[in-house]
Amino acid sequence: MPAKPMPWLWRLSMLKPGSTIGILGGGQLGAMLASAACEMGFKTHIYAPDNNSPAFQRTNLITVAPYEDLDALSRFAASVDVVSYEFENVPIAPLQHIQHTVPIRPGIKALETAQDRLVEKDFLKSCGARLASYAEVNSLEDLQVATQEIGYPCVLKTRRFGYDGKGQIVLREGDDLSQAWSGLKGAPCVLEAFVDFFAETSLIAARAVDGTIAAFEMALNTHKNHILHTTQLPCGLPEDVLSEADKISQEILTRLDYIGVMGIEFFVAKENDTHVLYVNEIAPRVHNSGHWTQDGCLVDQFEQHIRAIAGWPLGAPVRHSNIEMINLIGDDIDQVSGYLDDPRCKVHLYGKAEARLGRKMGHVNHLLA
Amino acid sequence: MPAKPMPWLWRLSMLKPGSTIGILGGGQLGAMLASAACEMGFKTHIYAPDNNSPAFQRTNLITVAPYEDLDALSRFAASVDVVSYEFENVPIAPLQHIQHTVPIRPGIKALETAQDRLVEKDFLKSCGARLASYAEVNSLEDLQVATQEIGYPCVLKTRRFGYDGKGQIVLREGDDLSQAWSGLKGAPCVLEAFVDFFAETSLIAARAVDGTIAAFEMALNTHKNHILHTTQLPCGLPEDVLSEADKISQEILTRLDYIGVMGIEFFVAKENDTHVLYVNEIAPRVHNSGHWTQDGCLVDQFEQHIRAIAGWPLGAPVRHSNIEMINLIGDDIDQVSGYLDDPRCKVHLYGKAEARLGRKMGHVNHLLA
Repeated sequence: MPAKPMPWLWRLSMLKPGSTIGILGGGQLGAMLASAACEMGFKTHIYAPDNNSPAFQRTNLITVAPYEDLDALSRFAASVDVVSYEFENVPIAPLQHIQHTVPIRPGIKALETAQDRLVEKDFLKSCGARLASYAEVNSLEDLQVATQEIGYPCVLKTRRFGYDGKGQIVLREGDDLSQAWSGLKGAPCVLEAFVDFFAETSLIAARAVDGTIAAFEMALNTHKNHILHTTQLPCGLPEDVLSEADKISQEILTRLDYIGVMGIEFFVAKENDTHVLYVNEIAPRVHNSGHWTQDGCLVDQFEQHIRAIAGWPLGAPVRHSNIEMINLIGDDIDQVSGYLDDPRCKVHLYGKAEARLGRKMGHVNHLLA
Repeated sequence: MPAKPMPWLWRLSMLKPGSTIGILGGGQLGAMLASAACEMGFKTHIYAPDNNSPAFQRTNLITVAPYEDLDALSRFAASVDVVSYEFENVPIAPLQHIQHTVPIRPGIKALETAQDRLVEKDFLKSCGARLASYAEVNSLEDLQVATQEIGYPCVLKTRRFGYDGKGQIVLREGDDLSQAWSGLKGAPCVLEAFVDFFAETSLIAARAVDGTIAAFEMALNTHKNHILHTTQLPCGLPEDVLSEADKISQEILTRLDYIGVMGIEFFVAKENDTHVLYVNEIAPRVHNSGHWTQDGCLVDQFEQHIRAIAGWPLGAPVRHSNIEMINLIGDDIDQVSGYLDDPRCKVHLYGKAEARLGRKMGHVNHLLA
């Protein structure tokens, strides 16, 4: 029987299966993105500087090179049909070099916004989001003025390269400001008012090439040592908070011309007996607090991201089960045998060779009754 | 913070994450096995003769070589911690060459049994399974005698290399036996009585290193042109049929010292108003009729197989949803856009470049209300 060319009845925007998805970054998020892409019939090409990247196990095409290596990046760009990334600190200059060769999704605008806390906050404010009061801090003098304006407690954060509580210091009445300032090594900072929240939540939203937006349900998060510990669904917050979060998210994704999945983190406070929703920060990528979708939804955040960047229609962000995600950090991995035996648990491991303190080794999705 | 060696609290039998799973065969079953293994923290190495194998997209380590290439196979065996396979027609002689270097799971015994319909039927009979009457046929004379014993209609099947209806001919009263015999080119055959079944079902069972057996629920299958078309759960058969199937399956897996997932196909007939269960055949591997487990269970057949061959405890074979699996064969792939838009459908594509007639291109899991 003769072979015939594949007569896909696709919309024009859609990448055909067999196309290659390029991903910058080789950690567990890149790994799970690669698996989702393969399950949809795509090839994947992972670009990462570290030869031991977990994502390399799930892809046939790899490039091991620094992100600043323009030659390697150009060859990578020429070998793929779309470029995405699994972390927000990809250097932007090299991306500008390839952006006319291949679509970069989400775009550079999202990266520029998320890489700088001050730019991010100004942008979020322009979207109508409620933020904790904040001020730019470039010197000890700035810090002294800002603490007086904002009051205590407050949080001093570097504008760039902060994650999982790194690059931030909580300041209380009477703390030594010059010590705090030198602790962050004179990096440009933002001072934020401390929100007296009773809940931390997040929302994983996706925007398609045609502008359609689909958001998974808002999730309730707990942290341990500043690292995400659990995510739980349903989050138990009232309808008006959920719909406010949806509305803000739509504004954020639309204004960024965003294509792909974004994680948006919130603080929920109670002021005068009313729930008040603050946006904490955004992550222009799949997000640890969205891992519950792998076993709580038919289409998860990883497939959703690939659908979006491939120009496919978004999947329905419908949750079929009550669920809790538990991160396995460092030594937590020792408990994995127990989870494997639990009929309501699904274990995901990242294949990292060494369990360092604070290192994300895997996660467990636990279906709740 | 210093790195420390991973202090896994594992049972002794268990392969550590970071170990390498070797898979012979690069089709969609190998691809989905590789994804499952990666999600559990394993590396994978796929061995297949065809440079365009779908499974190569999901693995970093590949060997492209014929199965008979002892040098390549030995290098492969030395690079992995366990060898498994995704199809039952792996040549056995080369495997015997490597079996003392690395565990082969499921074992060679299972392959020898499944590769020859006569050996398979004799084995199944010894397990207490009910089979359609059958007879060995090595000549036209044998065929003439056998059709008289077994009666019409009946099915002449080659002992080896049959799948998806290939290598078999249905014989009815008055058919030209010599034409049928020459149609199968004089290959050693088995003649089988035609079972007047009202349902075709299958069961996906797994056996762990410690002998524990876990079977997914029996599934109801329909075929189109001898190729699996749909699988549906629940199957609607009464409890006594299900428990008989479970009992036979346990016997089959135990007697083969089986480690891994097996697909067991049944015919269900109604004789004298009673359900009668015939075993049709076994496949010593993950099975197309088990694809529903990907979206109907927390642990699917692919993870279950990897758990078994890695010496891990089996997952609970619990179904959380009513579900139908629909194979996308050849041109069916054109309908994929519609499935992508359906919030109750999950699309799985194999990344095959050309849609040939009868070629399995992907499948859809459709959650039923």
